Amino acid sequence: MTTTTATWLAELTDALGPDSVLTDPDVTAAYARDQAMMAPAGTPAAVVFPRRTDDVAAVLRVASRHGIPVVPRGAGSGLAGGSNAVDGGITLVMTRMDAVLEVSTADRLAVVQPGVVNKQLRDAVAGSGLFYPPDPSSYDWCTIGGNLATNSGGLCCVKYGVTTDYVLGLEVVLADGRVLRTGRRTVKGVAGYDLARLFVGSEGTLGVITEATLALRPAPKAPVTLAASFATTAQAGQVVERVVTAGLVPSLLEIMDGTCIRTVDQVLKAGLDHDTRALLVAQSDTGGAAAAEEIAVLTALCEEAGAQFVHSTEDQAEGDLLLAARRMALPALERVGGAVLIDDVAVPRSRIAGFLDGCDAIAADRDVVIGVVGHAGDGNMHPTVCFDAGDADQRQRAYAAFDDILALGLSLGGTTTGEHGVGTIKLDWLEREIGPVALDVHRSIKSALDPAGLLNPGTVFRSTPAGATLGR
Amino acid sequence: MTTTTATWLAELTDALGPDSVLTDPDVTAAYARDQAMMAPAGTPAAVVFPRRTDDVAAVLRVASRHGIPVVPRGAGSGLAGGSNAVDGGITLVMTRMDAVLEVSTADRLAVVQPGVVNKQLRDAVAGSGLFYPPDPSSYDWCTIGGNLATNSGGLCCVKYGVTTDYVLGLEVVLADGRVLRTGRRTVKGVAGYDLARLFVGSEGTLGVITEATLALRPAPKAPVTLAASFATTAQAGQVVERVVTAGLVPSLLEIMDGTCIRTVDQVLKAGLDHDTRALLVAQSDTGGAAAAEEIAVLTALCEEAGAQFVHSTEDQAEGDLLLAARRMALPALERVGGAVLIDDVAVPRSRIAGFLDGCDAIAADRDVVIGVVGHAGDGNMHPTVCFDAGDADQRQRAYAAFDDILALGLSLGGTTTGEHGVGTIKLDWLEREIGPVALDVHRSIKSALDPAGLLNPGTVFRSTPAGATLGR
Repeated sequence: MTTTTATWLAELTDALGPDSVLTDPDVTAAYARDQAMMAPAGTPAAVVFPRRTDDVAAVLRVASRHGIPVVPRGAGSGLAGGSNAVDGGITLVMTRMDAVLEVSTADRLAVVQPGVVNKQLRDAVAGSGLFYPPDPSSYDWCTIGGNLATNSGGLCCVKYGVTTDYVLGLEVVLADGRVLRTGRRTVKGVAGYDLARLFVGSEGTLGVITEATLALRPAPKAPVTLAASFATTAQAGQVVERVVTAGLVPSLLEIMDGTCIRTVDQVLKAGLDHDTRALLVAQSDTGGAAAAEEIAVLTALCEEAGAQFVHSTEDQAEGDLLLAARRMALPALERVGGAVLIDDVAVPRSRIAGFLDGCDAIAADRDVVIGVVGHAGDGNMHPTVCFDAGDADQRQRAYAAFDDILALGLSLGGTTTGEHGVGTIKLDWLEREIGPVALDVHRSIKSALDPAGLLNPGTVFRSTPAGATLGR
Repeated sequence: MTTTTATWLAELTDALGPDSVLTDPDVTAAYARDQAMMAPAGTPAAVVFPRRTDDVAAVLRVASRHGIPVVPRGAGSGLAGGSNAVDGGITLVMTRMDAVLEVSTADRLAVVQPGVVNKQLRDAVAGSGLFYPPDPSSYDWCTIGGNLATNSGGLCCVKYGVTTDYVLGLEVVLADGRVLRTGRRTVKGVAGYDLARLFVGSEGTLGVITEATLALRPAPKAPVTLAASFATTAQAGQVVERVVTAGLVPSLLEIMDGTCIRTVDQVLKAGLDHDTRALLVAQSDTGGAAAAEEIAVLTALCEEAGAQFVHSTEDQAEGDLLLAARRMALPALERVGGAVLIDDVAVPRSRIAGFLDGCDAIAADRDVVIGVVGHAGDGNMHPTVCFDAGDADQRQRAYAAFDDILALGLSLGGTTTGEHGVGTIKLDWLEREIGPVALDVHRSIKSALDPAGLLNPGTVFRSTPAGATLGR
């Protein structure tokens, strides 16, 4: 440890107390990376656990005084390496700030700290008949702070939108330790720039979110569930397109491809038809006659498209079973496929069939297994490349397939990340997707808010030219 | 005209053609101000009418080369002086860029130029069974560009949100003339910062929007309409609060106070009860049994609160009649009250009754007439101060009442502008509402994107200290 490091560590310990500043390498290693296996990760000099906004401000004052990089993180459920540690930096773990500060039924909002787990918030408001929609797959362990940092989506997005749609106000500690409060408690408000939504999705590069005021919705009705299988991706794609043009807004509309179906069946032994090329699962949560009508129209659309099988149920346990195959897709791919690279392309909803076919072509071309599950209702697909991590050649082909999928997504008018974020794994792709003017605007805004570039450096975009070493 | 002015005017004329660059003071005067009578306005050196993005880029290159302020504007329907001209500057009128470039039913989106009138877009998508919800009162003449610049709301917000909720992507010409494309055509996407939503609501201070990709919704069902009158504001406030806590989401929930009711009755001779202190008008557009149920619950809530009168109808012509009183409120106040100052405070929905009573107290205290209409469902109130503009003392009291109302809104946890924007009339109030840290962040972002401060200077916030002259 250098004298400088000892100095700022002492300052941190003075400010937060010794139990909040950990440096034991065995402990800090547990906070060095998220769930993205392909992302590089450094070794933090310290892992810090703030308990309150003042603690975060103190950490950022120390960090800016000494020029130490700070990587904020929650539970580490990220899939893009966005919270991976920087060598010699501070990893700021927000999980101790885990209070639901307020639930207001009269104003239909909640005020929470960033370390609150998504499910904890859902449970906290359910008793008041309220609903916090954003539901990433990791909802039972990911934190709201991470959801805000990556603008998380989930299965609900087709009807209810993503995290940013629920953000009314934020408290953010800026790079220099000043505390910004922005946004409001009212439903509407246009007093000044929409700073809250600038911080949402900025992956910890502009400030550290320490509190959020979140809009809630009335709890939906119990869902009616439909599952339908198709012999071609084009048929399933046609259904999704007709759902959109018919003006249906199901509360869930998921798709999985033939590879996923076969893989899930290997694990679940559910007797799924191995000739099926696409499975759609949909739900309506409007309740009563409206839900019945919505499901009836969906059923008709599936039948018109030539579905092999269509089944719907109002029984929630049976609905959960129909959804189980979809929920099993990633775990099954992980169990059967060895290592997995989970991609995250969103395409216009009219291009889903073309995207599935393109993924099949890439799998054949690169000689790897690619299973696709996705949120069909909003076009956000998760093609998952399976490979043997011990086989260098296979690994290389898997990485190449991952890139091919991103290029395919862009060629179809899509985006390279629908909900996981750029993190550290898609820096080149961000540049390619948004182009030099937008990249320059990103850098200008970053410099305006974090002139020394200490907040989560090397995430989302490079402040240094491509190819330079980032220390992780 | 100075030599410098002649030089840049010649450059503009060379680039855009003489019919796009107007300097005749009789003509330019028509573009000097919006609808906010209390806002100062300067005299532009030129009013410029771009036809395409390249024209806008050329104007901004000329302006930045010569250091000329540029004020973008649409139809001039603004209510906060946000597009009022700056002395010696360029007023950039976007109304000739008025094409609906694309309507996609398959991806449920439209691509439009900024000069498209809100109603023009609504009509263009209606034929495809689609719906662009944001509906400011001026929807039949305001432009989408202005709606984007101010993040417009309207009557629909209670159920459908505001303009920013419909923005997928933007093309923006930056202060130096570079063209930024940001956002996407997909429903979801988190590639980089949410720049689109930073430009939305920035009132022309960060760039000039030249194209927008907007999400659409399926057309709603024909509305069922309910009207209810109350002898006290507390009763009406109770209904609004119970609507929220009961989890109802009507498609419209408007309120008007006793002053408005009496004034409207003077004009319409509709026999409205002069003892009524609040009138609620609500709609449900869910259709069929769901709408009937929603209106039945609303009726019960009104009756429980002790309504004097409750009436609902599925007949659309009768529904329009019930809404007519609400739509007449501002015109009636203008006709009867002389000059009007329309305020735009949004309060938490639980504070509406307190806000109405507070406005009555302010009216008594300042000895002016204040009528309040508002979007009760989202807490956005429009208290309107009526006064005789020729009476200096009354004018002064009216302005004082306007400020009292803003202070009242803040004291109730609200915001000083729910949907009209800060413009040039609420600079002091923005500072008071957001505080010094947020103001500094605004200035940093402004400097990052418009270092010379040429885009709509003096709007939203001051780049110069309070009290300095802004030239308009």
